[in-house]
Amino acid sequence: MTITRRTALTGAAMLAASPLLPNAPASAAAPAAGNQAPGFYRYKVGDIEMTVVTDGMNRFKFADDHVANANRETINKALEASFMEKDVILNPYNPVVINTGSKLAIVDTGIGEAAYAASKGGVGQLLTNLAAAGIDAKAIDTVVISHHHGDHINGLLKADNSLAFPNAEILVPAIEHKYWMDDGEMSRAPKGRMEDNFKNVRRVFKTEVMKRVRTYEWDKEVLPGVTAVGTPGHSIGHTSFVVSSGAQKVFVQSDVTHVPFLFVRNPQWHAFYDQDAPLAETTRRKVYDMLVAEKMMVQGFHFPFPSRAYVEKAGNGYREIAVPWSPTI
Amino acid sequence: MTITRRTALTGAAMLAASPLLPNAPASAAAPAAGNQAPGFYRYKVGDIEMTVVTDGMNRFKFADDHVANANRETINKALEASFMEKDVILNPYNPVVINTGSKLAIVDTGIGEAAYAASKGGVGQLLTNLAAAGIDAKAIDTVVISHHHGDHINGLLKADNSLAFPNAEILVPAIEHKYWMDDGEMSRAPKGRMEDNFKNVRRVFKTEVMKRVRTYEWDKEVLPGVTAVGTPGHSIGHTSFVVSSGAQKVFVQSDVTHVPFLFVRNPQWHAFYDQDAPLAETTRRKVYDMLVAEKMMVQGFHFPFPSRAYVEKAGNGYREIAVPWSPTI
Repeated sequence: MTITRRTALTGAAMLAASPLLPNAPASAAAPAAGNQAPGFYRYKVGDIEMTVVTDGMNRFKFADDHVANANRETINKALEASFMEKDVILNPYNPVVINTGSKLAIVDTGIGEAAYAASKGGVGQLLTNLAAAGIDAKAIDTVVISHHHGDHINGLLKADNSLAFPNAEILVPAIEHKYWMDDGEMSRAPKGRMEDNFKNVRRVFKTEVMKRVRTYEWDKEVLPGVTAVGTPGHSIGHTSFVVSSGAQKVFVQSDVTHVPFLFVRNPQWHAFYDQDAPLAETTRRKVYDMLVAEKMMVQGFHFPFPSRAYVEKAGNGYREIAVPWSPTI
Repeated sequence: MTITRRTALTGAAMLAASPLLPNAPASAAAPAAGNQAPGFYRYKVGDIEMTVVTDGMNRFKFADDHVANANRETINKALEASFMEKDVILNPYNPVVINTGSKLAIVDTGIGEAAYAASKGGVGQLLTNLAAAGIDAKAIDTVVISHHHGDHINGLLKADNSLAFPNAEILVPAIEHKYWMDDGEMSRAPKGRMEDNFKNVRRVFKTEVMKRVRTYEWDKEVLPGVTAVGTPGHSIGHTSFVVSSGAQKVFVQSDVTHVPFLFVRNPQWHAFYDQDAPLAETTRRKVYDMLVAEKMMVQGFHFPFPSRAYVEKAGNGYREIAVPWSPTI
């Protein structure tokens, strides 16, 4: 007897109709585990060991102005095409630890431990997942920040506002850091999201943090084998990274695209968090055309964990092809 | 300065050109971790807790007769479209533990602990990953077998040939079990793969195992909320399962399709391990048309871990849309 639609669709009805197999041995039921696997994943780029360590995932109802040039109906169609819930964006945060052999660094820090309780453990998982990965936060010698939005810098501080990476030098993009720390720029910022971000940058980059900060320039190495690449638009000084060792390369894109099911498919969409949206779009297309042409792997901060993919052209945009999970490294 | 193709492509060259940032603090290098995260993943179907527990992934060069009606060049084109290596198939094995509240069951058992050493840990990981998930193999009260191929039944035995699940009842599809245990069928089997599988079934279903075996019928529940659905073709008695609780359902497809980047895209391909290939194709299309029509989640044994997806029509076949990893359950 082969499957029919009826068969597959009447599972619930069958529940009543078909009693359990007779003679099933009595057994004590095991309690549900109730916890997710630790959120880390390792892979190699030549001699460099990468560990993607998730900070978790937010679920939020998007605002009417989430995308300036796409309305709710259009966005919901894209969500539906990816079998996602209407009106809701699932937004993961995936920092990556890079062990070059001589340096143990982390790129971006997530939304921060302080958000753990309010999100009921949904986000703010970074330090827990780092520990699960066997990585001591005290052993991290370098934090590399891609840009100064809260979901990338807030994790510099623990819930008690102490340093999450107490022994690390903190490398920040020079253009980005100058902009957000500039009082004149802040005074001209629109109220709301922009002004709030200026305030948050100042909150995070307090004296204790600033003592550890050093700026870096584009087109230079920030770590052995890791080169900063300017990808502005999302923010003034937004930076991506090419990790290269031997014959292998990966493009750590930061926020060139946000969640792929919306913004890889629709690179023309201008989301509210793209500070210079036309430049962000130009950058996005340049990067993605390069990824397609070079068949280069991309590691996306807001891609679903473990957030590695290749990119193909699709329609007027692109599609990410997730790299299969490997049970070994 | 925005990204240029030159910028992204000359990372290696820059390595020589750009010295490390000056004044970087000396630090003891952390050793590479060298190990992958434990391979388990949890999600809920209504009140039922599912834990996908990977047995690992094989990497093999495919034979010229891997697919009867597609040649090497055609298969390699499909691999290339998914950014996979030419001539190589990466084949993961993903059993799933189902905790219904009253039963703690596992569906299929993987390729077996005995394969661990020879594969250098690539496969045979099931028992290790089960332990990492906090699941005691001795607490499993039911093993449900979908069909009698080695990568689904060999894990019934440990490397020392003792029972991997010593306290479990072993439920097998009646048609499938009768066929492979029938001496007449075995005597008529072609030498090679078919005869080898008959021999392997007899090796695994030794007296000690047979004492624990009970057959199940299609269209009946094998566990509370889990209904066996006949999906023959891949083997005579090949079985899938609908897991249903409350308003939620998932289709545990077993091997209706093998690795998705080949056989979801190309349901018309007849692979050597499809015992009745035309029937397997008919079943595959019926199941996948149902998954598309019902927007039903599928859990695929040979899908990349954690092997959950939705299905859309694409060309003359289908495409799986992986369900994003959730850092919470």
